[in-house]
Amino acid sequence: MPRYFVSKENIDNLIIDNDNYHHLAVVNRAKVGEEVELSCNDITYKVKITNINKDTINFEILDCFYFDTEFKFKVTLLQSYPKGDKLESIIKHSTELGVYEIIPVITERTIVKIEKNKKEAKLNRLNLIAKEAAKQSRRNYIPKINGILSLDEVDFSKYDKLIFAYEVESTNNNKKFLEIINDIKDNDNIIIAIGPEGGFSTKEANYLISKGFIPVSLGKRILRTETAGLYCLSAIGALKE
Amino acid sequence: MPRYFVSKENIDNLIIDNDNYHHLAVVNRAKVGEEVELSCNDITYKVKITNINKDTINFEILDCFYFDTEFKFKVTLLQSYPKGDKLESIIKHSTELGVYEIIPVITERTIVKIEKNKKEAKLNRLNLIAKEAAKQSRRNYIPKINGILSLDEVDFSKYDKLIFAYEVESTNNNKKFLEIINDIKDNDNIIIAIGPEGGFSTKEANYLISKGFIPVSLGKRILRTETAGLYCLSAIGALKE
Repeated sequence: MPRYFVSKENIDNLIIDNDNYHHLAVVNRAKVGEEVELSCNDITYKVKITNINKDTINFEILDCFYFDTEFKFKVTLLQSYPKGDKLESIIKHSTELGVYEIIPVITERTIVKIEKNKKEAKLNRLNLIAKEAAKQSRRNYIPKINGILSLDEVDFSKYDKLIFAYEVESTNNNKKFLEIINDIKDNDNIIIAIGPEGGFSTKEANYLISKGFIPVSLGKRILRTETAGLYCLSAIGALKE
Repeated sequence: MPRYFVSKENIDNLIIDNDNYHHLAVVNRAKVGEEVELSCNDITYKVKITNINKDTINFEILDCFYFDTEFKFKVTLLQSYPKGDKLESIIKHSTELGVYEIIPVITERTIVKIEKNKKEAKLNRLNLIAKEAAKQSRRNYIPKINGILSLDEVDFSKYDKLIFAYEVESTNNNKKFLEIINDIKDNDNIIIAIGPEGGFSTKEANYLISKGFIPVSLGKRILRTETAGLYCLSAIGALKE
């Protein structure tokens, strides 16, 4: 059954409009009587289309259920902007794995150059990818892609637990990573910083540490930048859900 | 420093030959005096090139160290053959995350058709991808890609722990997954079966259960076929390393 993210107003007024209207009425050629799922906050509504107008669709609610697809805490991925289309793959995987927000950052060893005038278009596209991935994995929440910032532009003050993957850390530190995960409490705000292909520079690592980040090792093998975040999210999911 | 996987004979005879010779002498234009790393079983040798011949390279060993990059048990991924280039991405990620073997299988809902006469060439290419990924993540062991089989061609008798991701399983079963991971012992042979885009059919699920597989749920969200295995390997890594 197709599923759309709608606003609280849409639910209150029993209408589907804008992009959802276009996708449902024009692209999918929905018909009166068809059933679709509408997702709003943590609730999914099973609805039946009662009327298709020029710009809106009317519906009646058949059923609603609380779909608990979210962590009881928020995990933000501070991801150094990787080469090629890796960021898209990271967004897709992380969305499935429950990420709350992704902040792409430009670090010393970031190779990609993002022109200022293309930043907004890029962010729009990345947010669309997150939206599609959220739909596919039936999440009630669409992760936000914010940024693209430099490290010193990020406000770290709101986070309760701050960790970063640091290769220089010896393998003994994996226990620290586990300890931090085990210690996560409901409503915690967690941020995980993942370096670029060449890793964080010593200067950056020191900056992160000065901001309260704890360096951790992610197991015995060297993970690529596009794997490290998924490793963390999977571990958190398996341990805390 | 470049790193090559060599045979025990190569180490005993202090020579580099075949593909490694070609890559090192022809592609990389190595010179006498250069240092490279050679990996054989669990040991990494730091060596210095002493001579470059027509088909072989001689070296002396400067140092050797035991690089413990492997799980103390074996994890096999039984992966339904996915669409597009997803299998390559799965091989790369899984190799980084410590997989021992990947067996691509053709299931009822597999969309891809593999022609018999192309199977060997395909497997060769997939094994090359695993080799490159093993190099990158500095593993001492190169995961094998075997198959491509149908479910009933796989011999499941050698495995100690058999699990499969089954969407129909309620979310309560995540605990079961954790319990199974926690229960993994050294030298255990674990196999994780991941269904295709449409999941395993009921018939296949019943077949797997008859072979000793335990159905588990992988968290609250729906994971794509290319994410499910990574989730399992990450969770195992985080918990057992």
